[in-house]
Amino acid sequence: MRLVEVGHVVELVRRKGLGNLLRELADYIAADYGRWPEFDKSPRYASHSPGGVIELMPIADKQDFGFKYVNGHPANQAAGLQTVTGFGVLADVATGYPRLIAEMTIMTALRTAAMSALAATYLARPGARTMAIIGLGAQAEFQAEAFHALLGIDRLRIYDVDPAATAKFRANMAGRDFAITVAPSAQEAVEGADIVTTVTADKKRATILSDNMIGSGMHINAVGGDCPGKTELQDAILDRASVFVEYLPQTRIEGEIQQKPADFPATELWRVIAGETPGRAHRDEITLFDSVGFAIEDFSALRYLDDVVGEAGLYSTIDLLARPSDPRDLFGVLAGAGSTMAGGIETLLTRQA
Amino acid sequence: MRLVEVGHVVELVRRKGLGNLLRELADYIAADYGRWPEFDKSPRYASHSPGGVIELMPIADKQDFGFKYVNGHPANQAAGLQTVTGFGVLADVATGYPRLIAEMTIMTALRTAAMSALAATYLARPGARTMAIIGLGAQAEFQAEAFHALLGIDRLRIYDVDPAATAKFRANMAGRDFAITVAPSAQEAVEGADIVTTVTADKKRATILSDNMIGSGMHINAVGGDCPGKTELQDAILDRASVFVEYLPQTRIEGEIQQKPADFPATELWRVIAGETPGRAHRDEITLFDSVGFAIEDFSALRYLDDVVGEAGLYSTIDLLARPSDPRDLFGVLAGAGSTMAGGIETLLTRQA
Repeated sequence: MRLVEVGHVVELVRRKGLGNLLRELADYIAADYGRWPEFDKSPRYASHSPGGVIELMPIADKQDFGFKYVNGHPANQAAGLQTVTGFGVLADVATGYPRLIAEMTIMTALRTAAMSALAATYLARPGARTMAIIGLGAQAEFQAEAFHALLGIDRLRIYDVDPAATAKFRANMAGRDFAITVAPSAQEAVEGADIVTTVTADKKRATILSDNMIGSGMHINAVGGDCPGKTELQDAILDRASVFVEYLPQTRIEGEIQQKPADFPATELWRVIAGETPGRAHRDEITLFDSVGFAIEDFSALRYLDDVVGEAGLYSTIDLLARPSDPRDLFGVLAGAGSTMAGGIETLLTRQA
Repeated sequence: MRLVEVGHVVELVRRKGLGNLLRELADYIAADYGRWPEFDKSPRYASHSPGGVIELMPIADKQDFGFKYVNGHPANQAAGLQTVTGFGVLADVATGYPRLIAEMTIMTALRTAAMSALAATYLARPGARTMAIIGLGAQAEFQAEAFHALLGIDRLRIYDVDPAATAKFRANMAGRDFAITVAPSAQEAVEGADIVTTVTADKKRATILSDNMIGSGMHINAVGGDCPGKTELQDAILDRASVFVEYLPQTRIEGEIQQKPADFPATELWRVIAGETPGRAHRDEITLFDSVGFAIEDFSALRYLDDVVGEAGLYSTIDLLARPSDPRDLFGVLAGAGSTMAGGIETLLTRQA
């Protein structure tokens, strides 16, 4: 079983180049969204506590079973911990044997950004070069890099209520291929942008974008409104926009459209990717990707790692599965006294030395 | 985050001694069953495929969240693979951070046996010395050792339809503290036994024990009947026995009592362990532990490992969680260009060297 740690992913990004990796990851996501009906899509399991939530997000096709462990603990940040961390596992459906366990904190940031940019390739106006980013937290730089890699976005108009977040973003982006304008308000950041990305962190019904800020032809990439009670857009925007989502049953609960009735029209993005439905229909259309994050994106990220870390040697081999030479003789593994496992225990202990 | 591999568990057993470890594990299970109402008990998640099932079994108390990944693939054995493998994770509820990942194939075998023996300390006749074991597959030796460690069982009467399984069992038990009688039939194995353990593998409604085989005062430890459509006992036995189970909603679907109506009387064992209800009431009573395996037992096993592997040094430290010094600067971990993470990426890469 392969273990892919944080350091492996960091080194993978260094070798591939961030833009190249984001493009490859988007290709994996597109390939999986393009075969959407093949997936066994399950509701996530959530364990709530006063401090937050721990979730298990499983998904499977006929070959692979994957799941992500992910937490959400808003108070962590004050303690110097991350609000969201995670890891993922990929297993063989045929045997039930897990084969990969991987960090999914950085990979989730990468897949979220790759998904946003992938959606925008179908939904943003051709020739888009300028993106506004409202909210400069942990996800902001990833969004910028993914839109640069997939769409050629090279002009950023940024805004955050916290000057320290703005400073962090600018420091991280220094020397990269962007012309960056720091705006004094969200409204001014949005002016003249082809694409508007909202990725704020406040867990409440907020109005980061109001209807008057949105001009014809804009694409809105709404990333921050991603759980019940947390939205970023004034609901009048939803009435003017063509809304695209990952998985309707989930987005109706977690996305911007939680503000709307259960029959509010929205298109599942996989239909666009699979060629069943058009994305942007005309130049003046306002399009909205109401992103909440879906298990297939994690599955794609795990598949990607599974395919690339082998050749790159960027993994450790770990022994989480006992392998008795006779499957009925598990005790032989333990005792070393088993008739068939004389060599088995030696092998196991040698690995530890 | 700590990683406990198969070799670590094998070495832990060697250092502790198998009997001692089984007793300690039973103590952890008893402690957790004794505070049963504190647990957030969830149904397991199951992903079914033609070849088998992959399950995620979550459970939590106020401090810890745990889950086990476990598969069940009957055709694996013919391919030299185990039917059931697994691993488990323990996390802090307060922060959502996982802290332990551990092999759970051997640990599941150990906790299953420890649970059976723990139940028998409340349900078997005092002074029991002789146990019949019907079915000599992967779990059989563990059962024998646990009953030896917790109850002093030192006489075994064994039977399996497959002589190779019998030979494997005898070879594994050679030199251990048992007088072993190989019986020519299940019926003859049961004769004179104080405790009867059934742990057969056939996935069907079988009659391993028929009513006429069960004498007054016997304790039946029914381990093999553990999923829908898989039972081992003639249903008339259930009418004569006092039935004890782990978790009624689950056992009604998976256990021997799936043969009975939904109001068939059975006692949850935690009530006995907590002192709310008596176990065996009199010498002639027939008692039955209708075991299917419950998530608390895995939780106890993970807690046990979490408590003992530290001092023993029997773990590796792995980096599945990115740790930016500023939690909003995840990008800094990746790029190495982050204002606050100049040292972070170095640390990460050094670990890989």
